Amino acid sequence: MTEKTNSYDFEGATCAVPLVHDEKIVMGHGSGGRMSLDLIRNAFYPSFKNDILGAGDDAGVFDVAQGRMAMSTDGHVVAPLFFPGGDIGSLAVCGTVNDLAVMGAVPRYITVGFVLEEGLPMQTLAKVIDSMKRVAAESGVQVVAGDTKVVQKGNADGLYITVAGVGMIPAGVNISGNNAQVGDAVIVSGTIGDHGIAVLAARGDLGVEVDLESDVAPLNGMIAEMMQASNQIHVMRDPTRGGVATTLNEIAGQSGVTIELDQEALPYHPAVQGACEILGFDGLNIANEGKILTFVAQEDAEKVLATMRAHEYGKDATIIGRVTEKNEKGGRVVLKTLLGTHRIVEMLRGEMLPRIC
Amino acid sequence: MTEKTNSYDFEGATCAVPLVHDEKIVMGHGSGGRMSLDLIRNAFYPSFKNDILGAGDDAGVFDVAQGRMAMSTDGHVVAPLFFPGGDIGSLAVCGTVNDLAVMGAVPRYITVGFVLEEGLPMQTLAKVIDSMKRVAAESGVQVVAGDTKVVQKGNADGLYITVAGVGMIPAGVNISGNNAQVGDAVIVSGTIGDHGIAVLAARGDLGVEVDLESDVAPLNGMIAEMMQASNQIHVMRDPTRGGVATTLNEIAGQSGVTIELDQEALPYHPAVQGACEILGFDGLNIANEGKILTFVAQEDAEKVLATMRAHEYGKDATIIGRVTEKNEKGGRVVLKTLLGTHRIVEMLRGEMLPRIC
Repeated sequence: MTEKTNSYDFEGATCAVPLVHDEKIVMGHGSGGRMSLDLIRNAFYPSFKNDILGAGDDAGVFDVAQGRMAMSTDGHVVAPLFFPGGDIGSLAVCGTVNDLAVMGAVPRYITVGFVLEEGLPMQTLAKVIDSMKRVAAESGVQVVAGDTKVVQKGNADGLYITVAGVGMIPAGVNISGNNAQVGDAVIVSGTIGDHGIAVLAARGDLGVEVDLESDVAPLNGMIAEMMQASNQIHVMRDPTRGGVATTLNEIAGQSGVTIELDQEALPYHPAVQGACEILGFDGLNIANEGKILTFVAQEDAEKVLATMRAHEYGKDATIIGRVTEKNEKGGRVVLKTLLGTHRIVEMLRGEMLPRIC
Repeated sequence: MTEKTNSYDFEGATCAVPLVHDEKIVMGHGSGGRMSLDLIRNAFYPSFKNDILGAGDDAGVFDVAQGRMAMSTDGHVVAPLFFPGGDIGSLAVCGTVNDLAVMGAVPRYITVGFVLEEGLPMQTLAKVIDSMKRVAAESGVQVVAGDTKVVQKGNADGLYITVAGVGMIPAGVNISGNNAQVGDAVIVSGTIGDHGIAVLAARGDLGVEVDLESDVAPLNGMIAEMMQASNQIHVMRDPTRGGVATTLNEIAGQSGVTIELDQEALPYHPAVQGACEILGFDGLNIANEGKILTFVAQEDAEKVLATMRAHEYGKDATIIGRVTEKNEKGGRVVLKTLLGTHRIVEMLRGEMLPRIC
């Protein structure tokens, strides 16, 4: 098999990814044999290059210090693969990085599992890998192991990606959905629902053009600064599928508390607000991929908020509510409406926007 | 949503898996909302139950000691989902357990990512989870995090699973594909090609009935005993996709050596031998899912072999060759045939048996 190098532009950056001669994925790329090795050597190794991966063994090997480790995984099946603000590659790395970071861990090593559809253009794969590389570099994680499977045309919608990752939790840090305290302020790091509506629009399902990008971003850098600013952060979680409503209900249930939200404080991009009004969606149910919900003791709330607002990914951060009381029997989330009435905010039921991440 | 408990038989064992009322997977199970939570609480938690997973956070958290950690991932897209000797669930856990074990690591924590097809019967998922639970228990690993996505009917052939895992490597252990030494004996832990031919037969692609089971098995227990028996094991690797031929070529290349195999020593189940003769396959290219290739210093070879033969998963272990010389320019694998001639054994090219794991 001969090789060539294709250069292409992606999001303004020119990068050169050597491609194997075959310009589409074929079943042989999943054989585990020579073609798999060529794909790994020519597409994956140059982008994810590091000494751990480079050893070429069945597992990546690295040193760890004594302590507490966090480990998480996230699979991605988003359609379309590319959308304003991101793609399945950036989503996949951010998903796991953020799941580790919200536990207070420093994300460090990830693994990548691809399921590729026969016929997938090699350039599409190269673009996705390039995104993964970019987000991995930004978030400071190394790809230490990977796996590639190929399925027949008609399956997998191009590709699926599952990323797993690990990171160490600094001594003394104890952040969990179980730790919400009465009096905690609830902060959201920016506008709600951008990812879900951006993907919906990219599918053409909105029927109108919107000027909106997905918020997909690795949040570990901002989170590290927040943890420097306060040691009274009790809970962090990223409100992905199911949105803010579902995530807050999970936390309310885990901690056995009532959470009250102020409707007038909820930050929405005008395009999300408009789409929700037209489609009858509740923005609190729409997925985010670059936002966190943070529960912090009231006395540190302004300090943490200021830290977030100073960061690129938290410039629109705002306090949206508070923990009002213990509620051992299960926890609940209530919304104080613009009219001053209260309504229960429920977890998302059923499926509103399939294949959103 | 109401719940019920369904009992069923699976591989002779009666197990009770509480199922959500919906008897098939629907898109809502991937929403991240209430239906996802029900699926997790009713199908995943009871089977994978442990304190780490039970915390219900975005990542599993556990203590680690200072040292070297191995991390690996493996995706599985096998068709059919169930075959004699195993299923996609046992494959998925064994794949990662074995990838860690062959590095000398003690597999400990795994994550599980599911991609489920809309319409998948809940009982099918329950059977797969039951297999995963059984293999996890046998191999001593805990599921510490998971993710579930649902894709529309027509994708994903029922389900795909990606497992990642970590384990610590005991101090002083240094096993790698880079470490093959001239004089090393090459041991295979049993008959070659059972998995690939068993799956092919289960698909009905052989045209004849065969009395053969997949060899899928977690090998960490046997490997631990082997490492107790000798500190001169230089290389271990499981010859999965691409078979013994591909794995040995990888090792020959990494270590820069020539490996010579004795054709008459290669152990085959009669059904595999027969299928290869009929179909014109080379058994050295057929996938195994419960076998390892071990390179050990000649003086310890019999000791390691005896240890393997005393173990359920190594009873047919045999020495199939040796490392004959350094070969810095790339490494190669040669086969001494029954006629006394030599032929080059190449890596698998193209795709012989798609969707085998």
